Amino acid sequence: MAHTIHFLDRSTVSFAIDPAAPPRLEATAPCELMIETHDARSGKLRRPEDETLTAPSFADRFPRTNPATGPVRVVGAEPGDALVVEVLRIDLDDYGFVMVKPDAGLLQGVVNRTETKILPVIDGQVHFDSLRLPIRPMIGVMATAPADEAIGTAYIGRHGGNMDNNRVTVGTRVHLPVRVPGASFYVGDLHASMGDGEISGSGVEIGGRVHLRLALEKGAAREWPWLETRDHLITTAAAPGFDEAAEIATRSMMALLGERLGVSPGDAFALLSIAGDVKVNQHCRTRIGSSVRVEFPKLNAGFIRG
Amino acid sequence: MAHTIHFLDRSTVSFAIDPAAPPRLEATAPCELMIETHDARSGKLRRPEDETLTAPSFADRFPRTNPATGPVRVVGAEPGDALVVEVLRIDLDDYGFVMVKPDAGLLQGVVNRTETKILPVIDGQVHFDSLRLPIRPMIGVMATAPADEAIGTAYIGRHGGNMDNNRVTVGTRVHLPVRVPGASFYVGDLHASMGDGEISGSGVEIGGRVHLRLALEKGAAREWPWLETRDHLITTAAAPGFDEAAEIATRSMMALLGERLGVSPGDAFALLSIAGDVKVNQHCRTRIGSSVRVEFPKLNAGFIRG
Repeated sequence: MAHTIHFLDRSTVSFAIDPAAPPRLEATAPCELMIETHDARSGKLRRPEDETLTAPSFADRFPRTNPATGPVRVVGAEPGDALVVEVLRIDLDDYGFVMVKPDAGLLQGVVNRTETKILPVIDGQVHFDSLRLPIRPMIGVMATAPADEAIGTAYIGRHGGNMDNNRVTVGTRVHLPVRVPGASFYVGDLHASMGDGEISGSGVEIGGRVHLRLALEKGAAREWPWLETRDHLITTAAAPGFDEAAEIATRSMMALLGERLGVSPGDAFALLSIAGDVKVNQHCRTRIGSSVRVEFPKLNAGFIRG
Repeated sequence: MAHTIHFLDRSTVSFAIDPAAPPRLEATAPCELMIETHDARSGKLRRPEDETLTAPSFADRFPRTNPATGPVRVVGAEPGDALVVEVLRIDLDDYGFVMVKPDAGLLQGVVNRTETKILPVIDGQVHFDSLRLPIRPMIGVMATAPADEAIGTAYIGRHGGNMDNNRVTVGTRVHLPVRVPGASFYVGDLHASMGDGEISGSGVEIGGRVHLRLALEKGAAREWPWLETRDHLITTAAAPGFDEAAEIATRSMMALLGERLGVSPGDAFALLSIAGDVKVNQHCRTRIGSSVRVEFPKLNAGFIRG
């Protein structure tokens, strides 16, 4: 069956998730989008020595890192709706890069100076010198605009942002809260592979294009973005420290379980403890903070009402 | 082929991993053991109302919770060796329990008083009222005795202990450091299912029997226990807070990668960031502290030298 895909290129990138930015594309949901994205250095880092030229300043309100492509105005989206973004496909560019720094990461001081490596991606494998790693493509930044002030694409919040959640990948539906008319949707910051925790603060940073399906659920916004895969419900949150982020994501999942299973808070707490998993999205100890998710198995996948 | 299995029952349980305790069993590695274990309340909690009778006091040096069965004296084991424990099979009892408390867990104050539920385990499913959850059997406590003072079985350390690591399950080889002649090996605290993080501090606490294969690697002790599965190397650590535990486990994995791949610290850091996963074992905010693991894919499983 033939149908339309709305295409948006990466000729312009944004360093802010900005409710005031004019839309680069308008589309009526449900719809499909094909969006080009740049890597964390906007495609300008092609040799290791380019790092010093492209390093962003975090003194800026909108550091020039982790750009997103957008905004897309979703016709009909109103504050209080949920924008449901299904990831249909992720196509990666031919090479990415990884970077380790003295002052970023779960460990600090491992290296004396920034080390950058260009990593070709060939036939589904990342080439790291003589080593080969299978790709695990995911989307680092996905967001709708916040209601009031613009937020840098490097940051994470109730609007989504730089969630660096490995589950934002093909097959997943990301539920984002709509806070402004038209939603103002952005996407960017692909990784060919990124470990849970992103220990050094860098995955295989890479550009590419993502094929997405957008739908609206009227009045279904939750406070934080949440995800749905074939097998799991996933809540997500971010905060300066791990404990606080984990606490928010856990409370969100308890609320979801209460709604879906009709169980008491005590039973939701017990169910989460025996079958839910607290997982680390990103914990690289920068000012970006800690990003955490909580996964719980779905009722129709090995978790069945009796 | 017929062979010997050394059997040890649970008629006596230990609340301390104690280098001075006389062995209950002696065996020469390599050997197979079948060890019976009790649940976290030593099999005495059979109705929800038993909870008050069985609640341990954490004012005790060795709180009467999470008992282990042992010690097993491994003939020939010397300080500096690694005791490699392969989990061949876990057979669970017919029912377990779960417990949520006002003052334990990633969230506190969810309930006003302790709530306990008896959970039948039937045909591979945990029965939680009308809900059914597939079992995910694992071993919560595994340890060799520390060199100096005994440590309560509720606690975690360089000797292993209450690691609550979901990867300590069938197929995994746990490498424990030998600190005293004969190793003094203990095992206990099975869970029919426990989420990563053990959000309330309780999994499906259950007794059972574990079938293990023990081997010695002379002089191969590392500072902390580590694990090997078919596909992954896994380091593990514990500390009062998440950050410190994650840091120790990350440094351990960087050292392993340096040895096995011959890469520089910077490259190990980068590889970990793009392909290693920081995962939460247990983070229930009690005095037990935070237990964290770092997983890295093995070279022979989708991660191939070129």
